[in-house]
Amino acid sequence: MNILVLHGPNLHLLGRRQPEIYGVQTLQDINKILDQFVAASPHDVVLKIVQSNHEGEIVSVIGDHIDWADGILINPAAYTHTSIAIRDALSTVGVPVIEIHLSNIYAREEFRHHSYISGVAEGVVGGFGAYSYILALQAMIHILGPTMDDN
Amino acid sequence: MNILVLHGPNLHLLGRRQPEIYGVQTLQDINKILDQFVAASPHDVVLKIVQSNHEGEIVSVIGDHIDWADGILINPAAYTHTSIAIRDALSTVGVPVIEIHLSNIYAREEFRHHSYISGVAEGVVGGFGAYSYILALQAMIHILGPTMDDN
Amino acid sequence: MNILVLHGPNLHLLGRRQPEIYGVQTLQDINKILDQFVAASPHDVVLKIVQSNHEGEIVSVIGDHIDWADGILINPAAYTHTSIAIRDALSTVGVPVIEIHLSNIYAREEFRHHSYISGVAEGVVGGFGAYSYILALQAMIHILGPTMDDN
Amino acid sequence: MNILVLHGPNLHLLGRRQPEIYGVQTLQDINKILDQFVAASPHDVVLKIVQSNHEGEIVSVIGDHIDWADGILINPAAYTHTSIAIRDALSTVGVPVIEIHLSNIYAREEFRHHSYISGVAEGVVGGFGAYSYILALQAMIHILGPTMDDN
Amino acid sequence: MNILVLHGPNLHLLGRRQPEIYGVQTLQDINKILDQFVAASPHDVVLKIVQSNHEGEIVSVIGDHIDWADGILINPAAYTHTSIAIRDALSTVGVPVIEIHLSNIYAREEFRHHSYISGVAEGVVGGFGAYSYILALQAMIHILGPTMDDN
Amino acid sequence: MNILVLHGPNLHLLGRRQPEIYGVQTLQDINKILDQFVAASPHDVVLKIVQSNHEGEIVSVIGDHIDWADGILINPAAYTHTSIAIRDALSTVGVPVIEIHLSNIYAREEFRHHSYISGVAEGVVGGFGAYSYILALQAMIHILGPTMDDN
Amino acid sequence: MNILVLHGPNLHLLGRRQPEIYGVQTLQDINKILDQFVAASPHDVVLKIVQSNHEGEIVSVIGDHIDWADGILINPAAYTHTSIAIRDALSTVGVPVIEIHLSNIYAREEFRHHSYISGVAEGVVGGFGAYSYILALQAMIHILGPTMDDN
Amino acid sequence: MNILVLHGPNLHLLGRRQPEIYGVQTLQDINKILDQFVAASPHDVVLKIVQSNHEGEIVSVIGDHIDWADGILINPAAYTHTSIAIRDALSTVGVPVIEIHLSNIYAREEFRHHSYISGVAEGVVGGFGAYSYILALQAMIHILGPTMDDN
Amino acid sequence: MNILVLHGPNLHLLGRRQPEIYGVQTLQDINKILDQFVAASPHDVVLKIVQSNHEGEIVSVIGDHIDWADGILINPAAYTHTSIAIRDALSTVGVPVIEIHLSNIYAREEFRHHSYISGVAEGVVGGFGAYSYILALQAMIHILGPTMDDN
Amino acid sequence: MNILVLHGPNLHLLGRRQPEIYGVQTLQDINKILDQFVAASPHDVVLKIVQSNHEGEIVSVIGDHIDWADGILINPAAYTHTSIAIRDALSTVGVPVIEIHLSNIYAREEFRHHSYISGVAEGVVGGFGAYSYILALQAMIHILGPTMDDN
Amino acid sequence: MNILVLHGPNLHLLGRRQPEIYGVQTLQDINKILDQFVAASPHDVVLKIVQSNHEGEIVSVIGDHIDWADGILINPAAYTHTSIAIRDALSTVGVPVIEIHLSNIYAREEFRHHSYISGVAEGVVGGFGAYSYILALQAMIHILGPTMDDN
Amino acid sequence: MNILVLHGPNLHLLGRRQPEIYGVQTLQDINKILDQFVAASPHDVVLKIVQSNHEGEIVSVIGDHIDWADGILINPAAYTHTSIAIRDALSTVGVPVIEIHLSNIYAREEFRHHSYISGVAEGVVGGFGAYSYILALQAMIHILGPTMDDN
Repeated sequence: MNILVLHGPNLHLLGRRQPEIYGVQTLQDINKILDQFVAASPHDVVLKIVQSNHEGEIVSVIGDHIDWADGILINPAAYTHTSIAIRDALSTVGVPVIEIHLSNIYAREEFRHHSYISGVAEGVVGGFGAYSYILALQAMIHILGPTMDDN
Repeated sequence: MNILVLHGPNLHLLGRRQPEIYGVQTLQDINKILDQFVAASPHDVVLKIVQSNHEGEIVSVIGDHIDWADGILINPAAYTHTSIAIRDALSTVGVPVIEIHLSNIYAREEFRHHSYISGVAEGVVGGFGAYSYILALQAMIHILGPTMDDN
Repeated sequence: MNILVLHGPNLHLLGRRQPEIYGVQTLQDINKILDQFVAASPHDVVLKIVQSNHEGEIVSVIGDHIDWADGILINPAAYTHTSIAIRDALSTVGVPVIEIHLSNIYAREEFRHHSYISGVAEGVVGGFGAYSYILALQAMIHILGPTMDDN
Repeated sequence: MNILVLHGPNLHLLGRRQPEIYGVQTLQDINKILDQFVAASPHDVVLKIVQSNHEGEIVSVIGDHIDWADGILINPAAYTHTSIAIRDALSTVGVPVIEIHLSNIYAREEFRHHSYISGVAEGVVGGFGAYSYILALQAMIHILGPTMDDN
Repeated sequence: MNILVLHGPNLHLLGRRQPEIYGVQTLQDINKILDQFVAASPHDVVLKIVQSNHEGEIVSVIGDHIDWADGILINPAAYTHTSIAIRDALSTVGVPVIEIHLSNIYAREEFRHHSYISGVAEGVVGGFGAYSYILALQAMIHILGPTMDDN
Repeated sequence: MNILVLHGPNLHLLGRRQPEIYGVQTLQDINKILDQFVAASPHDVVLKIVQSNHEGEIVSVIGDHIDWADGILINPAAYTHTSIAIRDALSTVGVPVIEIHLSNIYAREEFRHHSYISGVAEGVVGGFGAYSYILALQAMIHILGPTMDDN
Repeated sequence: MNILVLHGPNLHLLGRRQPEIYGVQTLQDINKILDQFVAASPHDVVLKIVQSNHEGEIVSVIGDHIDWADGILINPAAYTHTSIAIRDALSTVGVPVIEIHLSNIYAREEFRHHSYISGVAEGVVGGFGAYSYILALQAMIHILGPTMDDN
Repeated sequence: MNILVLHGPNLHLLGRRQPEIYGVQTLQDINKILDQFVAASPHDVVLKIVQSNHEGEIVSVIGDHIDWADGILINPAAYTHTSIAIRDALSTVGVPVIEIHLSNIYAREEFRHHSYISGVAEGVVGGFGAYSYILALQAMIHILGPTMDDN
Repeated sequence: MNILVLHGPNLHLLGRRQPEIYGVQTLQDINKILDQFVAASPHDVVLKIVQSNHEGEIVSVIGDHIDWADGILINPAAYTHTSIAIRDALSTVGVPVIEIHLSNIYAREEFRHHSYISGVAEGVVGGFGAYSYILALQAMIHILGPTMDDN
Repeated sequence: MNILVLHGPNLHLLGRRQPEIYGVQTLQDINKILDQFVAASPHDVVLKIVQSNHEGEIVSVIGDHIDWADGILINPAAYTHTSIAIRDALSTVGVPVIEIHLSNIYAREEFRHHSYISGVAEGVVGGFGAYSYILALQAMIHILGPTMDDN
Repeated sequence: MNILVLHGPNLHLLGRRQPEIYGVQTLQDINKILDQFVAASPHDVVLKIVQSNHEGEIVSVIGDHIDWADGILINPAAYTHTSIAIRDALSTVGVPVIEIHLSNIYAREEFRHHSYISGVAEGVVGGFGAYSYILALQAMIHILGPTMDDN
Repeated sequence: MNILVLHGPNLHLLGRRQPEIYGVQTLQDINKILDQFVAASPHDVVLKIVQSNHEGEIVSVIGDHIDWADGILINPAAYTHTSIAIRDALSTVGVPVIEIHLSNIYAREEFRHHSYISGVAEGVVGGFGAYSYILALQAMIHILGPTMDDN
């Protein structure tokens, strides 16, 4: 199982500021937890993790893994609400996609309630901070895995 | 940890029809999996599970557990989009709430994109079928739990 | 042919007030006319008639007849415009549904022009008072019947 | 009882194409069934049936029968959603109008959900294919008739 | 003067939580104050007070008092914004209705600014907490009373 | 001065029905008054008057007078709100256009408040019944005339 | 016949600037033409003409003439689109009102297409510059006059 | 307790016209009743009553009483729906404000459903004619008063 | 290859006026160029060209060629934005349709941005004046042709 | 250089209340700073400063300075969002206008995001408290001045 | 004639997946066909072809060719609906622009119906797959060319 | 005082084209003027100036200066209206932000009236061409400076 993990714009600053809101975990911490989870998993999972502030780069990275990825975890951050290009890239690749949000976007400003990504995603997990990633990774393994025993 | 699990309207019919869409699992199956998960959990978790087709009954059940529940998992089904009364009940109780959906509502009809519940929920998990419940239960235990070691 | 006839909220008061608008017929009168129609029909039709003011009860009744009903006639009254739960219940059962209205809802207040039920109904009959029921029953028999000779 | 039956644009092609959707009945078949229904009716009903693709012609035909028609059955087809001129013509004549649709327009594209005709119609029957006409004709006879015995 | 007082969903929890917002008065306290007010009134007023979380039950209670009530005081709470069924029930009964709100709903979230009840209400009193009920009761006695001397 | 006067759909029925609303004057009466006004005018005015229920015919008539008309008076009736084709025809001809309405369309149903014609008209006169035509004719003569003395 | 003529905000500057658009006529010129028209009229017409930049003053002037005015001509200028207070004042007085505009507001910016005044006006005349006043005055005399001979 | 009572535009005409709708009471009558109520009150209440048709004057009067008023009762009439300036003035003064309406504005034209004033008001009383003022005055005394005994 | 070419309303006036905008080419010129293009084409193409100002006539012409046309080129002009009837006619015939515009409608007034025709068209070509027709004809031949060599 | 400085409604109360928000500067302080700035300027600038709560007065003041003002600085306050009359007055005068706001209106309530004034203003400065005036004055001098050296 | 051809995001994956939808042609194939077309053209045309997934890069490329390009062909793909920056870049360069789409975007999801590019484009060609490029190139040559003989 | 100055997309072309609109000043000229202003300032100000056409690069630059910048001046150009990512970046950094526009965006196309940046900006300056930058820089120094003496 090859899983591409994509972090959208501004997530490289995680943990640097407003720790009372976003927690003290940095993006490096999240990535380490994901790696540990995979290492402890009975499944043969390979993660590739990319962060980018560039819409175009995210589009490119998705396209570059068209033959590699079996599933994609994406936290599109601000591009959730404005990028049809990322939606189209995900849709072109055609593997299962899970949309991740640190916060509950549906409980924030009106303009954050609409997601262009949801229309091409298998499911969404949001509002649990860094833990959203763990849940989404688990869900992806569940989707790609052969049986339900893996919970 | 006392956790109230609420199944909204029509969910009692799960598994009875259209198994190619909603899977062959019945609501009883889901409830059993949740119980097994709790039994296997190192945490002291007590589940109370209720299904109702009545908006008013869901409101009442929530209010009745105002002193009991430490967290609420709710799949509001169709009431997601129409019930301010359930929103107000959840908001009154004031414990963490997680919103669950079997399907990815944000990828369905336009009128299913808006949730009155999200505004008072900690987080949302949707699109993974019965497995959405497992993820949400895990997330709730994570929220209520003392440390992050519990993943 | 098993046909479930559902009367929505406030219809139990029919004939009690404003007879100049809604006519002098009570719900009992309408039910009797339906029974007489069925009795006179060459088809083997069984009617089951339920009135409820509760959205949740209507949802339950629909689900309870999932193995019994061959068709459903429903006058959702006020729930026409607000109930996605009833829509979902009808959609789950999967038999032909006909939407009935005593008045022509499309010629009344703006908020009565939208129906959540229409999206899952075979057809709609509205504006003919009690007679709307007779027409809808006929249409249902026609849909469920083998040939068109039955007019 | 003089009843004007109006078929709107494109209905002259009925039965020519996509019989799996619209059935194999042509407009001629529908007209014949209506004539037979009238012939078999105990009431003294005279039908006048007109099909036109022209909004203006439909307006003219309605106006031309201002002194003749006791009721109007109209399937405005595409003009349902765009013609205020036909609405005004019907409103000027002032006799009962019944709006007919072969399909359930409220379950189709968004732009077919609004009807300019409904505002001046007694009632609406839609979604039953050719049988919608029979039901509407019955309803009109019921409205124009002296007693309810005529079902 | 027979006056029906209806408390909508979640109001049974009043005073249990967030007393800094909603005050320490429970629904029982409010009901007692209303009874005392009536007892002290020079008018012959009979109150019947019902609380329900069920939209359908509120509809039923309204219908059940069609021959008894001379006026209705209703705090529809969350159903203010979503229930056409309650609106229709009130409209069917036809006696004066006064809409009550503890908070000033017009100064809260956008979705609380619209009321389906207002269209069939004589007047509205909102924003004064429990005291809103006293004012509304006074207004109802004023409306039903013979002269204006009763202020 | 060659002035084309266009009467839109349903205006041929004027005076036939609802005289308490539209007055007892027929379209013939209006035309006669216009002719008399012109006969009494010191200006050399030639009127050409056409009524049509057909949008396409109105478009054609406008185009046919592209070399003849110095000004156009048009009561587009229902086509006011739906015809971009008539707007385009008027705009192509390029002479002054005055929009006429018997009733005050801005005080009627919402869908009558928007006019596609206004965007290409010099001015509008509405709400004065048949007298709207006299005022519009006067205005057109004023526009086409050399000096203001002609009032 | 006592007719109140009201000029709204900024109209006192007429003729001072942009004469190529609004003409060289000042408000004084328009008032003089109106006086001359009245002097030449066979009817016994008394004009009272007021210009004000104050919404409140226009409201007051209307109220002050509640017992005097038989009809009101008003060019509300910018207040057309924003003043419910003037609408209410006109509606309170209850005599015929004619709305006047120098330009064709329906062919200008979107926000000038809506008029709060139209809803309480008998008719509207717009787009003919100063001549709009003459036409409106004529129309008012026609409305207040006994017969149609006065054209 | 110093209470400023503000009557908005057109209210000076109360009782002059349409007594069948607004009652025969003039603004003077209402003011007298308010004075009598205060005279009979056990509290030390001073009323200052102002009526104005001018938005700017209402703004000025509010500002002028910034050091005097303990509470403000305002019937903004038409300015309810259009004046942000009055809203800002009330918000600047910062004492409790109660919004009053003679009619139930939420049951009238769509454009009367929105209030700029509600957002800065403690509460609203509407629909009870002149009696709305008595209720609002009582509510203000209740808000400003030390205990609830004052009902 | 039988190709029906339809010119919508007002196009018969092309070249008569505003040549600086629409060019000096008349509709006859365009038709001649199309004929020449076909004559020079290596494919066996038969053109049938119709212009009409009547929505109904265009509907009729489309229906009349249901057995003849292999493809339809249509410049619906103003009916682009208002005619569901033409859309339905094209959809009934079921052959490839190409939508043509002389100007770039998406860069003009807001109301010209929406096309009812696009939903049933293979493609659209607009903004190139008369040359739009040549491009569309080429595209149709390409669609109907066997290989791509035909460019 | 004659520059008219206009302060809109409620600004006369500046500094009186909520100094933590709006600062301790009064309108008099701001005016003094403006005068000092002008006194220190190498340019020959004459300021005329007016504050008014009346929309109509602001309209009048603008009109009265049609021959005097070379530029207008205006803080329309609440009238920013509601006054087309002030917009029209500014547009009539035709000299450069700069719109000033103490706060950043685009970051406040939704209804403060739209400005009727911006459409006729050269530029806008907002969000810097009293300092917004200094910046705007500088900008006006820059616009009216001969060269850019004056910064 | 120097023509810049821009391919937007995700187009580099063309032909890689879903060949039944997008055809088997890769972007390289399209580019080759364009080159061949140019080679065979009697005109002196130079093509420069760029593909980018980056909005910013597309903006830069457009700006970099401000002195080189005589025309621009652009398939903005997903950026059609979201990029004002590309619109502004095209508008700055000021040469003719033709908008290209492989699919008919006006027949797809609602959010693909609006194009920010159309407002600054000469024309649009869409829905013909790779052939859209050929048509657009032809149109550009036609626009830039001296006479119409070049078809 | 470390101030980051950001120029958005297409601004590198400033002065190259349409000098009659945007002036003859290039971005280099603006930068030089800013440097000169800083050099002449009595404050210890350090400017860092960046131009980018890439949304992602602007996001990165903002994040890269999280520990350096005391204030940010940004002319987001086209990204004003589409970039939530830049908004989030600015919001993360948390220092004062001033939004700059060369033109008055509120007086241009409708889609330029909304700014995602304003919600996180201290203030906005727009409409004064290159001089907008000087004013914004002054305002930033004022905000960051200790006293108001610095004007």
